[in-house]
Amino acid sequence: MSAKRYARRVTLASRPVGLPTVDNFLIEPFVVNSPLSGQVLVKVTHFSLDPYMRGRMDDAASYAAPVKLGHIMEAGAVGRVEESASDGIEVGDWVYGRMGWTEAAVVDASLIQKIPASIEPKSLCLGALGMPGFTGWWGLTQHGRPKAGETLVVGAVTGPVGSMVVQLARRLGLKTIGIAGSDEKCALAVDKFGVDHCLNHKLFESANEMQSAIKTLAPKGVDIYFENVGGKLFEAVVPEMNDFGRMIVCGMVSWYNEGAMGADARTDSMSVANLWRMILIKKLSVNGFIISDHWSQLSKFVDDVEPLVASGEIKYIEDVVMGIENAPSAFIGLLQGHNFGKLVVKV
Amino acid sequence: MSAKRYARRVTLASRPVGLPTVDNFLIEPFVVNSPLSGQVLVKVTHFSLDPYMRGRMDDAASYAAPVKLGHIMEAGAVGRVEESASDGIEVGDWVYGRMGWTEAAVVDASLIQKIPASIEPKSLCLGALGMPGFTGWWGLTQHGRPKAGETLVVGAVTGPVGSMVVQLARRLGLKTIGIAGSDEKCALAVDKFGVDHCLNHKLFESANEMQSAIKTLAPKGVDIYFENVGGKLFEAVVPEMNDFGRMIVCGMVSWYNEGAMGADARTDSMSVANLWRMILIKKLSVNGFIISDHWSQLSKFVDDVEPLVASGEIKYIEDVVMGIENAPSAFIGLLQGHNFGKLVVKV
Repeated sequence: MSAKRYARRVTLASRPVGLPTVDNFLIEPFVVNSPLSGQVLVKVTHFSLDPYMRGRMDDAASYAAPVKLGHIMEAGAVGRVEESASDGIEVGDWVYGRMGWTEAAVVDASLIQKIPASIEPKSLCLGALGMPGFTGWWGLTQHGRPKAGETLVVGAVTGPVGSMVVQLARRLGLKTIGIAGSDEKCALAVDKFGVDHCLNHKLFESANEMQSAIKTLAPKGVDIYFENVGGKLFEAVVPEMNDFGRMIVCGMVSWYNEGAMGADARTDSMSVANLWRMILIKKLSVNGFIISDHWSQLSKFVDDVEPLVASGEIKYIEDVVMGIENAPSAFIGLLQGHNFGKLVVKV
Repeated sequence: MSAKRYARRVTLASRPVGLPTVDNFLIEPFVVNSPLSGQVLVKVTHFSLDPYMRGRMDDAASYAAPVKLGHIMEAGAVGRVEESASDGIEVGDWVYGRMGWTEAAVVDASLIQKIPASIEPKSLCLGALGMPGFTGWWGLTQHGRPKAGETLVVGAVTGPVGSMVVQLARRLGLKTIGIAGSDEKCALAVDKFGVDHCLNHKLFESANEMQSAIKTLAPKGVDIYFENVGGKLFEAVVPEMNDFGRMIVCGMVSWYNEGAMGADARTDSMSVANLWRMILIKKLSVNGFIISDHWSQLSKFVDDVEPLVASGEIKYIEDVVMGIENAPSAFIGLLQGHNFGKLVVKV
């Protein structure tokens, strides 16, 4: 028998109240066993950090079960197969799977997917060509009904969802307004992702001020609001929606630290009745979605978008954190908007 | 020259604060002129009273312009042509048009429609086969995606919209839960319109209590909520929606007396963020609509539903108020739920 092999993983040590702290996480070694029949051992090279993980840290009903205390934090990850006890997968294959915040994983081969050779770098499977990019593509194409000449607003525009949404929308001839958390991010949104306008939300004290700025940039109103942040932006955009506008509800990261994924957040200027009335009188269409319901469409997305990413027509930014030990603080920074593009941990 | 002819109409005397009073209306005589070329003179037999008219009394942006002070109250009306200066319309023809709260109207022939001989009584054009019935049919078929075995909830179930919705839904094999404002109305909803269950909303002190009652009647959750009342029912139903549920936002009469058509209404238990989060995690589809955008589809509705009304398969109730002088108080009663079925004024 060979000596025991160890790797590190990150588990949930305690549930956060509001913004998580590093004490909510535990970095711990674990024994890496050899794969049993049907399993493979994957040496993880990158795992993903995404806002939705904040919801998994609460012990509240959400669209997925919470992470249990003492259990590994969930995440999509990519890596190379180091040992295989599965017929279809060979040592050296690159694979994607929901392996979590970990340096290595022994997983059932049915739970991982081989990454096509054409995808390079492999970490694209966590961002532009993975869950976040797919989220932007699905939401816009399934619920957005985008038409040339219309105006779209999306928050967190330099993130992997927002940047996919605006680039797809621009290709369809829409005017795009992005929102980001710094002037530097706004410059990037314009220069790299080609948004027509970008607003730094930190420059606005209130939703009303932000609404005025959006009205100036979108004098003909907003046709599509891709909702991934909630908060001030949400309050600012809804009154500017045009008749027959579409609101695509994908996330609300600015509220995730408030109660059960935002349930307790308060709005400044908008009541429920006011929102409901606007949906009526503006004849809005509002669709919530969770991308994990739609994995069967992933290959259609990859077929559509991979060539555009490979050719550079659709751009992406990776914000790479080195070392699993830095994952908790990077995740906390993500919830505060400190990342710059798709946040991945290189392990 | 013949002597001047007079008729009476109801104009908006002042704008209400909260629930209107009879002093907000003025019943006044006016001179009925002879029709000019292209016009007809209609002797109105019935006009319609509907909750949306409350919105027209406010001087606030809504989906339609407000009624101006001193101008006639808007309404759909039916009547017989008494004089015609239009080629296509003859004396004695039955017609429908938006003639308002009036005993007679001289209107451009292009603004009225002949009522088919098969429709009897003609006042059906104001209810089951008119705007309210069409509203229920359009909302359910366009946005509801109803499937046999699903559960639907609708408020004001004995009204002309709600009763159309539940009867169509039952024909499609859905379980239907109606809400009404008295035990007598509930009995009617069950006996006449065949709803599976009816709740008297006056028996519930809070949205939470009503939610428990709905949970008991719909242990598998609610798939379609046809929203025409807002208020307590709205708060009670949203948390009981199933994943991929559909909310069809057609009206919110319980809020119409609060601010600009409900904009200032407050909810007991639900925040905007909470509602938004439920739309996300339950992946709900919410669609507001205003039926006047869809008149081009009216004939399809009439083709579909008229035979069912004629055969008695789809039932309706008319609540007939005699005399234009009683229209204001009847309308105020409508906003309080005092009507029993479709409210029309026989003039």
